[in-house]
Amino acid sequence: MKIQLALDRMTMEEAIQITGQVQPFVDWIEVGTSLIKEFGMDSVRALRSRFPDKCLVADVKTFDNAAYEFDMCFSAGADVATVMGAAPLVTIETCIEVAAKHGKQVMIDLLHTPEAQLQALATYEEVVFCVHVSKDEQEKRDRQQSADQLPHMLKRFDGRKKKLALAGGINLDSLPSLIRARPDILIIGTAITRATDPADAARTIQEFLNSSQKGENSHA
Amino acid sequence: MKIQLALDRMTMEEAIQITGQVQPFVDWIEVGTSLIKEFGMDSVRALRSRFPDKCLVADVKTFDNAAYEFDMCFSAGADVATVMGAAPLVTIETCIEVAAKHGKQVMIDLLHTPEAQLQALATYEEVVFCVHVSKDEQEKRDRQQSADQLPHMLKRFDGRKKKLALAGGINLDSLPSLIRARPDILIIGTAITRATDPADAARTIQEFLNSSQKGENSHA
Repeated sequence: MKIQLALDRMTMEEAIQITGQVQPFVDWIEVGTSLIKEFGMDSVRALRSRFPDKCLVADVKTFDNAAYEFDMCFSAGADVATVMGAAPLVTIETCIEVAAKHGKQVMIDLLHTPEAQLQALATYEEVVFCVHVSKDEQEKRDRQQSADQLPHMLKRFDGRKKKLALAGGINLDSLPSLIRARPDILIIGTAITRATDPADAARTIQEFLNSSQKGENSHA
Repeated sequence: MKIQLALDRMTMEEAIQITGQVQPFVDWIEVGTSLIKEFGMDSVRALRSRFPDKCLVADVKTFDNAAYEFDMCFSAGADVATVMGAAPLVTIETCIEVAAKHGKQVMIDLLHTPEAQLQALATYEEVVFCVHVSKDEQEKRDRQQSADQLPHMLKRFDGRKKKLALAGGINLDSLPSLIRARPDILIIGTAITRATDPADAARTIQEFLNSSQKGENSHA
């Protein structure tokens, strides 16, 4: 189970500083949509250049213009780029083609993806599906209720062989119920980036995941 | 009927140069999604500072994090910002609230918006609905077939009192069938920006619209 650190709503200086503090305790680094829209591809290039060995996710949330946007992200140094599950299938399929050409990965963000479209997406191999409770849903509804949506949304992935990521207000309180779904990637933002001590928060989460996985293995 | 010039897939120098050439013949200037994702809010600020009197549209295609993204676009100088019709309603409603607070406008991009969601969106007043055939749909399908989708998509807006924009490969060939729907805004990109003479292309389109509207008035 990997931890993907989501960097959002901050300056590039803050993003670089926090990543420097927490990088021993996280696996993937996500350049959040808000950084891309505020600072452009400079945001991807800056994190690539400072952290050359980390897997870098460009949360570009492509909805159209797939080849151009994905080429742009991979050229700037991203290893993974995101496309919206709600986008036209021709867009998502173009993202998959472009990523394959670059030897990179696609993450499909399932936020507000209609049921019929989810079924079409399920045929894709070699992508990461991201089950996602949005920032706006978290902030405008009851936060706990939003976090509670994740286990519910996960039910459709029971018995899956897909790579799965989870995102949306994940913190130490919600972790225990979420890891039962055995996601491949846990995307964690403010629970680390807004913590008084981001390195301590990331270390605690990493230790919790390690101890859960050990416990699981010893029961196997 | 206004012309919105869509600037996409180019450098900021090209965007500023083309806008300078065509500005007498277009009404609104759109900072395309590709410019925002490549150059960040600098793209909006650069066009705002060079063309202080033009209505500036930030095609930010918000899908989450509505308040942050819309505040960012309006603070950078945009007069209009876009949100995806396929996004959660809480996101679209937050965009409308933030725009009202700034005294600015929301354009809802209806690209791949499910039918049930379209019905929910129809209750919103004071927004511009953008009926949109995507770049990927245009490029991966037959181009003419994609342009032919627009009149079909427009049928659902018959009898509407909504502000309507049309986008997607619009050019002089497709204009005659499109203007029958009396859109408020025609969004035109490559038919101007990739023309051998962008100013001449924009002038020709403007003259066509003016003569059609005169013809219409004289029949009234």
